[in-house]
Amino acid sequence: MKITAIRETAIPLKSSLRNAVFDFSEMTTSVVAVITDVIREGKPVAGFAFNSTGRYACGAQMRERLIPRILKANPESLVNAAGDNLDPEKILACMMQREKPGGHTERSVPIGAIEVAAWDAVAKISEKPLHRVLAERYNGGKTIDKIPCYVGGGWYEPGKGLKELQDEIRAKLDQGYTTMKIKVGGAPVPEDVARVEAALKVVNSSANLAVDANAGFDRNRALAYAKALAPYKLRWFEEPTDPLDYSLLAEFGAIYDAPIGTGENLFSTQDVQNLVRFGGLRADRDIIQTDVPQSYGVVQFSRTLEMLKREGWQRKSVFPHGGNQMTLAIVGGFGLGGCEAYPGVFGIFAGFADDAKVESGYLKLPDRPGIGFEAQNALYAVMRDLAAG
Amino acid sequence: MKITAIRETAIPLKSSLRNAVFDFSEMTTSVVAVITDVIREGKPVAGFAFNSTGRYACGAQMRERLIPRILKANPESLVNAAGDNLDPEKILACMMQREKPGGHTERSVPIGAIEVAAWDAVAKISEKPLHRVLAERYNGGKTIDKIPCYVGGGWYEPGKGLKELQDEIRAKLDQGYTTMKIKVGGAPVPEDVARVEAALKVVNSSANLAVDANAGFDRNRALAYAKALAPYKLRWFEEPTDPLDYSLLAEFGAIYDAPIGTGENLFSTQDVQNLVRFGGLRADRDIIQTDVPQSYGVVQFSRTLEMLKREGWQRKSVFPHGGNQMTLAIVGGFGLGGCEAYPGVFGIFAGFADDAKVESGYLKLPDRPGIGFEAQNALYAVMRDLAAG
Repeated sequence: MKITAIRETAIPLKSSLRNAVFDFSEMTTSVVAVITDVIREGKPVAGFAFNSTGRYACGAQMRERLIPRILKANPESLVNAAGDNLDPEKILACMMQREKPGGHTERSVPIGAIEVAAWDAVAKISEKPLHRVLAERYNGGKTIDKIPCYVGGGWYEPGKGLKELQDEIRAKLDQGYTTMKIKVGGAPVPEDVARVEAALKVVNSSANLAVDANAGFDRNRALAYAKALAPYKLRWFEEPTDPLDYSLLAEFGAIYDAPIGTGENLFSTQDVQNLVRFGGLRADRDIIQTDVPQSYGVVQFSRTLEMLKREGWQRKSVFPHGGNQMTLAIVGGFGLGGCEAYPGVFGIFAGFADDAKVESGYLKLPDRPGIGFEAQNALYAVMRDLAAG
Repeated sequence: MKITAIRETAIPLKSSLRNAVFDFSEMTTSVVAVITDVIREGKPVAGFAFNSTGRYACGAQMRERLIPRILKANPESLVNAAGDNLDPEKILACMMQREKPGGHTERSVPIGAIEVAAWDAVAKISEKPLHRVLAERYNGGKTIDKIPCYVGGGWYEPGKGLKELQDEIRAKLDQGYTTMKIKVGGAPVPEDVARVEAALKVVNSSANLAVDANAGFDRNRALAYAKALAPYKLRWFEEPTDPLDYSLLAEFGAIYDAPIGTGENLFSTQDVQNLVRFGGLRADRDIIQTDVPQSYGVVQFSRTLEMLKREGWQRKSVFPHGGNQMTLAIVGGFGLGGCEAYPGVFGIFAGFADDAKVESGYLKLPDRPGIGFEAQNALYAVMRDLAAG
């Protein structure tokens, strides 16, 4: 069997979102199709993925060197020992030829998107949902029925006051979520404290509210927030510092006793190792949030988990970035802590199967073969067209 | 005044080079032209740069978001207070809009290339060589006549033995170089020790020989080389570990007392801060080697130098990566330790002015306005065509 073609296209997110440091008005993402010569239901099996959200489309790197490396390779060098399916570990190694050490993001995002699309094809060829394939390979076959899923929101908007924030949270609870993450850092400290207090009144428990600063604080502001919010013992405080400023994160953690979450802007196993070694993080409470399709994909993520285990971390402490079905399958397959959701926020790239329903804060894993994009009508329309060429 | 156009083109390096971990057979680089409406000698002033060597061309990021951001900005927002020249700091800030924190390389390389091209235009509009413009802005006006320049080589080739290595080094000394850097890690330890001993016989002094492992060692091999080469007290040992493995670098340094050089694969001020804080580096002897056009350019480099000063480092400890005229101007302008040279190795992108001559290990700074690419015939032919559109 072999890969016959890999196609990619860049799609604008068309999002008017804005957080404390960043707006998404120009944001794009690359959708990838890995097409094989294996036939299922009369058609060649195609695997799909996209490069999550928050990093721009990366089709040029795919077209100019990553896809040519795969298509030039001997097809036998990219399949498993039985010769009946793709081997994503070999596909990753093939793409990593002639890449200098370090400097990850320029390639970790396009490589990760292609690698995850290869996994979608692997699962479809196996006629299993991806979470089951991953559980067999990476979690002793343990399958999980449902995944803890929290919802993100609480953006700043002109004219949005405490009441509107509470209404937003109430609407999310009505949808079946129990835990909500809201933005901080877009207002002065006392105003954000008031927002946290207002939100806590709706979610009922401090274990049901997280906050996210999107790496927008300098030292003074980070430490001010650490002092101001520590007493609330929230579910976690996300990205209180520059993602690479491990010294400042350690200072923050020395003041802020409740859990800290970070990692969505680290793209290599080595960066995550530095985070846990130098960032003062605490394996008994803190949360690691790397984005799998932006960080070389599933095989490299399994290496990150092995490293984290050596450093004393449990899988339950990992909540991967990206509220989408790729993340859902990965959380289920590896037995991680949980998944995030941004319903209706990132256009066709947000959310799960169209018929997915959150119940009491949990999402059921789908039974469809592969990642399950086929049950997301608007997104799958793009993928189907891409596979058709 | 304003920028009227920014153009880029990708050029293959056509290099058959191979080091311990990497070959350059697919390598490309982006050449950039920043064209202004300022007229000198009857023609619009154009600034030029390229994204150094070792990271692939990055024109897609330029075309899709970086160039449009600059061309959409109010031209008055990108010039100095007098309104008579570009302000690269403002151009950098303009390009950084809507970029998430962390994950640098995907944009630090294209942004750096555009920013350095803007500096070339700034210097031409000022009718001064770039090193003088930078000295006035960043080094109290101190100008330097000549720059210490070492030469890189000593690659592995089939059939190349100790005698051929010594002949290679002798040829470089005949060209006027005094200090040579050779590769290690492409052979077993005893063979590399023999190569170092053979090389030392030709360069005469351990201060005139550096070695470069290109980040290719795992822990065992790194520590074996530390023990084997420490007694030779070489000029420096370059990239003995993965560029981001600060823990292992600290272990290496605990064994290896002589100077260590690293940094060409770190692309942000924050990464370099982590290197000096967590990598066990010693400000009294070690060498920092970031690549300016690959790391957001000159303005961000000045911030890296400020950070390094706060951490106790002197400018003489900085030897920027990239044996080209951009680096030469930056070393001269900021008063750094020295420059590297790879004559004849990276096609049109290697080396300095066609009439440049190394004497006793020093290169004279050019007097031409700007970076001085106009004196590199083969490279300037590409740049001139690009500016002509």
